[in-house]
Amino acid sequence: MYSLLADSHTHTERGFQDPGSIYQPIQQDLVEVKNWLKSVSEVEFTQLSEMLDHSLRGGGKLIRPALVLLSGKFYDYNRERLLPMATAAELFHIATLVHDDAVDSSVVRHWRPTINKIWGADKAILLGDYLFAQAAELAHITRNLRVIRLSSQTLMTISSGELNQAFNAFNLEQSYEDYLGRIASKTASLFAMATESGAVLSRAPEKSVKILKEYGYNLGIAFQIVDDLLDFISTEEEMGKPIGSDLTQGTLTLPAMFILQRYPEDNPIKRLFENRDKQENIQLALELVRNSSIVQDCYSVASDYCTKACHNLNRLPDNPLRQTLTELADYIVSRNR
Amino acid sequence: MYSLLADSHTHTERGFQDPGSIYQPIQQDLVEVKNWLKSVSEVEFTQLSEMLDHSLRGGGKLIRPALVLLSGKFYDYNRERLLPMATAAELFHIATLVHDDAVDSSVVRHWRPTINKIWGADKAILLGDYLFAQAAELAHITRNLRVIRLSSQTLMTISSGELNQAFNAFNLEQSYEDYLGRIASKTASLFAMATESGAVLSRAPEKSVKILKEYGYNLGIAFQIVDDLLDFISTEEEMGKPIGSDLTQGTLTLPAMFILQRYPEDNPIKRLFENRDKQENIQLALELVRNSSIVQDCYSVASDYCTKACHNLNRLPDNPLRQTLTELADYIVSRNR
Repeated sequence: MYSLLADSHTHTERGFQDPGSIYQPIQQDLVEVKNWLKSVSEVEFTQLSEMLDHSLRGGGKLIRPALVLLSGKFYDYNRERLLPMATAAELFHIATLVHDDAVDSSVVRHWRPTINKIWGADKAILLGDYLFAQAAELAHITRNLRVIRLSSQTLMTISSGELNQAFNAFNLEQSYEDYLGRIASKTASLFAMATESGAVLSRAPEKSVKILKEYGYNLGIAFQIVDDLLDFISTEEEMGKPIGSDLTQGTLTLPAMFILQRYPEDNPIKRLFENRDKQENIQLALELVRNSSIVQDCYSVASDYCTKACHNLNRLPDNPLRQTLTELADYIVSRNR
Repeated sequence: MYSLLADSHTHTERGFQDPGSIYQPIQQDLVEVKNWLKSVSEVEFTQLSEMLDHSLRGGGKLIRPALVLLSGKFYDYNRERLLPMATAAELFHIATLVHDDAVDSSVVRHWRPTINKIWGADKAILLGDYLFAQAAELAHITRNLRVIRLSSQTLMTISSGELNQAFNAFNLEQSYEDYLGRIASKTASLFAMATESGAVLSRAPEKSVKILKEYGYNLGIAFQIVDDLLDFISTEEEMGKPIGSDLTQGTLTLPAMFILQRYPEDNPIKRLFENRDKQENIQLALELVRNSSIVQDCYSVASDYCTKACHNLNRLPDNPLRQTLTELADYIVSRNR
């Protein structure tokens, strides 16, 4: 069902990317979301406007707004509620990236210098706060208490997941369950927020809300597993940021866990986490993953989560959108960045 | 009406402080707020719990929760709505302090090491995010859309005010209006949020909401002016953090503006901002303020804002609480930390 190796035929040239034809049913409304995002940077305070403009032109794949809109298509597709929430989901995501880059002192993202690289970590902290608040402002337009609350709950989940990651940097004693819990908090929670809020805002019955929320959750897990794998097997040119950055930060992801499992005695992850020959061991770890079945094993775990994501979609109203969600899951495990 | 010099008779020993008898009408409910705050740190994730505990035991004056509760006393004093919002206002304030300390690389606050000093700026960023989200969660308990929205609007205002301050560090070309605009954004907005939400949650008529909101706003301006003055004239022992920190950060506050105005040719602020003899010029600036009428002039500006704050209180229902609010304003300009 899912292609196991990265392919690039769904990608266009560098810059704004979307998974091609999959977004077709919501193409027009994604243009609206981009307009909403653009208007966020139109503030009088010049320097803030420049920072907003830089962070919002990142050229993301708009997966989270797409999930809000697609999940809103099964029942009452109310654009007045769905568009601000779709925009809020993207702003929320961008705010976490701005803070993450400051947390990790990352200097490049999406082929461009990060906010903290250009303006300093101090201003990145404040810009992230502004973006979180702006996201909450947009969520508020829905006037739906449940959806508004989802935003704050999700931020609690994400920040505690990120803290968990920070506290476990360079810790070899982590289980697969620890890893899953962490990516559930830091990534799947926002995917689930997107699909749940799309469903709630379209007045879906509770059973369908649950199916769409679980779709988002499992898709998010799959997405992060692929993301973590790409940090080993992709290139800086493809990803727009340095490869091996998780290892540099001491973050133990699935490919690294497979290495630890297969070479329990001596391996580059162990040596790296014991603070030996950093660059050399990162290179060795990347090569170990690239030249082994670990690539396929990671894609296989991700695929299982995509299968799980799509498992109950047939209980949603019979609608071509069900196929779209399946295609999106397929894209998630075939993407190469 | 307002004492012009700091006095300390309303203060008890170091640790938790409140402006003594002024809080009497809400004393019991402030204990409840402290219990709510305590419960925020009771999470399973041990390291997060420790960080929360450290940040929440700061020993603040609980002015913002007091403002929510006092403003809620004129009409329908509904504790179920007011207590979570009062707690949210304090959490909100603490979140901004955690981020501010990371932004400024401050190492001491309330006589104790800051979060970023103990755990690093990376974890301080994430803890601040968690606290903002937790504040929003509590605001949500009110189920009042207007009040929930106030939180996100206020965070936008605060973070953009802080960014303005960061972008104007070591900039001598700032007017009194720039200063006022900045302290309105970074401090008065949260005071106004506290009083407005207290009023709204007690179902005050719109005219009274406006009076209480303006009370909070002007009180906030006065509070920040005194805070900025204390950074010149107090002691590290009194304040629990280093004196002269605004100058160290290159932040131009009212006392510094008075120096620039009175000694336009050559003065320590100018020399400091031109990056000359940092420690020496900070000391000179502190002495210049301490040994001049600038102290009284700052208190006088602050007093004017307190007068403005209290000006319309007599249009609220005739209630001893009006006197309490006046006493709180008096305390604001007489406090010595």
